Amino acid sequence: MSRFLNPRLSKLKAYTPGEQPQDKRYIKLNTNESPYPPSPVVIDAVKRARVEELRLYSDPEGKVLKKKLAELYGLGSENVFISNGSDDILNFAFMAFAGEGIGARFPDITYSFYKVFADLHGVLYETVPLAEDFSIRPEDYYGTGALTVIANPNAPTGIALTREQIREVLESNPDRVVVIDEAYVDFGAESSVPLIQEYPNLLVVMTYSKSRALAGARLGIALASPELIADLELLKYSTNPYNVNQLTMDIGCAAVDSDGYFRDICRKIIETREDTVRALVELGFRVLPSKTNFLFITREGLNGKDFYLALKERGILVRHFARPRIENFVRVTVGTPEEMEAFLAAAKEIIQTA
Amino acid sequence: MSRFLNPRLSKLKAYTPGEQPQDKRYIKLNTNESPYPPSPVVIDAVKRARVEELRLYSDPEGKVLKKKLAELYGLGSENVFISNGSDDILNFAFMAFAGEGIGARFPDITYSFYKVFADLHGVLYETVPLAEDFSIRPEDYYGTGALTVIANPNAPTGIALTREQIREVLESNPDRVVVIDEAYVDFGAESSVPLIQEYPNLLVVMTYSKSRALAGARLGIALASPELIADLELLKYSTNPYNVNQLTMDIGCAAVDSDGYFRDICRKIIETREDTVRALVELGFRVLPSKTNFLFITREGLNGKDFYLALKERGILVRHFARPRIENFVRVTVGTPEEMEAFLAAAKEIIQTA
Repeated sequence: MSRFLNPRLSKLKAYTPGEQPQDKRYIKLNTNESPYPPSPVVIDAVKRARVEELRLYSDPEGKVLKKKLAELYGLGSENVFISNGSDDILNFAFMAFAGEGIGARFPDITYSFYKVFADLHGVLYETVPLAEDFSIRPEDYYGTGALTVIANPNAPTGIALTREQIREVLESNPDRVVVIDEAYVDFGAESSVPLIQEYPNLLVVMTYSKSRALAGARLGIALASPELIADLELLKYSTNPYNVNQLTMDIGCAAVDSDGYFRDICRKIIETREDTVRALVELGFRVLPSKTNFLFITREGLNGKDFYLALKERGILVRHFARPRIENFVRVTVGTPEEMEAFLAAAKEIIQTA
Repeated sequence: MSRFLNPRLSKLKAYTPGEQPQDKRYIKLNTNESPYPPSPVVIDAVKRARVEELRLYSDPEGKVLKKKLAELYGLGSENVFISNGSDDILNFAFMAFAGEGIGARFPDITYSFYKVFADLHGVLYETVPLAEDFSIRPEDYYGTGALTVIANPNAPTGIALTREQIREVLESNPDRVVVIDEAYVDFGAESSVPLIQEYPNLLVVMTYSKSRALAGARLGIALASPELIADLELLKYSTNPYNVNQLTMDIGCAAVDSDGYFRDICRKIIETREDTVRALVELGFRVLPSKTNFLFITREGLNGKDFYLALKERGILVRHFARPRIENFVRVTVGTPEEMEAFLAAAKEIIQTA
């Protein structure tokens, strides 16, 4: 940190992304990436890209991609915002819809970036403990007077709320924005998108990093009422108008055009997930009920950090969070069936030698 | 705007990018893009990209690209920051190095985005009138106690300061950051990069959109002391850790690998610029001395807005700014020799019929 930094930021603790070690090749089950490649249509779009035209700015309005996304989700273009990954949108949400006396409220165990955004923008926030079973209690978010931020399904627990439970939260907060972060919604949870027409205070945030297998392309989208989208556009045009580059626009269009492909890989991942759950339960693990592409697991007598390290030693990378209540859990991304077999074999070995 | 928006932002006036009309094909001389394509090495890099690997996150540290850039500029990786376009970096600079009692200071006529960043972050700013001849007077920025932001060369005037003039500004502001925005430096101005080792308060911002012909790829870089770079990294990890996508990283690496190509196209553009200046002077125009890839021009008796409209009617797009002192100027990007001939022919015709 320099002595020039605004003192307000000097205590800011940044987000820590999952580790990307370079020392050897791991079976990488730590950052919830897709084990399958993007759709062949996407691959083809990049191969056919008119790279010469990269000399020109991309369309700051993103008209073509927005129209495609609007059709896909049964909305209008005025309901769609696109960005350089969904973190960017979450950042805007804290900047736009909290602060100046309006706080934020989110679970104590959730995407750990929320509190970073809050701190960055000087937003006072309250974290609400998850229930005993690690689920979110919707009633904890009724009429709070604050910006509500709920990951649905939640991370790293993987547990989802129903659309009707989300509706109750929206209903009770008519004067505040409710952000539903649907990063993992495609793996079996109910999306809140059908509620957008009814609730002008609903902001649904999605990413093409997980289910669309495009983490490296950076495409996040927000779906909401035209008024909320206009607020996000205001912030975009006040920070980085050309926020989505031309190749990512092309990739996004190709991804929408091949929507069936992503549904197929989601089905495969869900199948692998359920097989893995059965095997883990047999090995004596407690597995939280996941509607995502990861599993949050623990086992009586097994220290979470030691388990993470023992797996790493065996070439398998998972994620461990050194935080109260979940320090004996690890989060395991659902990979290919072969990767999960390797993971299960390693887990078995570790248990037996423990 | 929604009723949910933070009232602090409700009066924010966003930046207006150059128009990108879709009604017909124009000779596009309005957004300072390169008339030449990116280097063949860049084009090849995209064609050969391992699109399958887009399923994985890009390296948030950008190690490979940073190392290449550091070598190119004779610095260490710890002196380099990469971002999704340079606007993103300028935004961070206002956020990090002003506010909380520290204001900002920049010319009245310059990149119009600076005041948007200031307003967004609640930074009080002072604008300093350019000299009679539209140059920046360095002494106006001596010991100001504020964050100093100077585009060098300046836009839309095209006029550059020397490195020694920048040194004086740095020397007299040891306790405040001085941002030198070198978006156009490759077209004939002196870069301040050699001053980085001497001045921990110098932040040089560059873009690969102009001279590298990569506007659509979005790559901005900052070069500075390790302490200032650490501050920018803190903000990146607090907003969008994976801010540069994998394809743009690959493109950036290929651009550095083919550095000679970009120098060649800069030489061509400078040649075309000087030919155009001679022709414009012959037509009775006043042309500010440009060290950029654009010309800022005016002509006695010619209304700036009318000239812009008359050119547009003839299929030629330039940029007009409806602002005091410069309302009778237009900014013309230097295109190919053929494009400039078409522009000159249109200008001649307009003058004759006026």
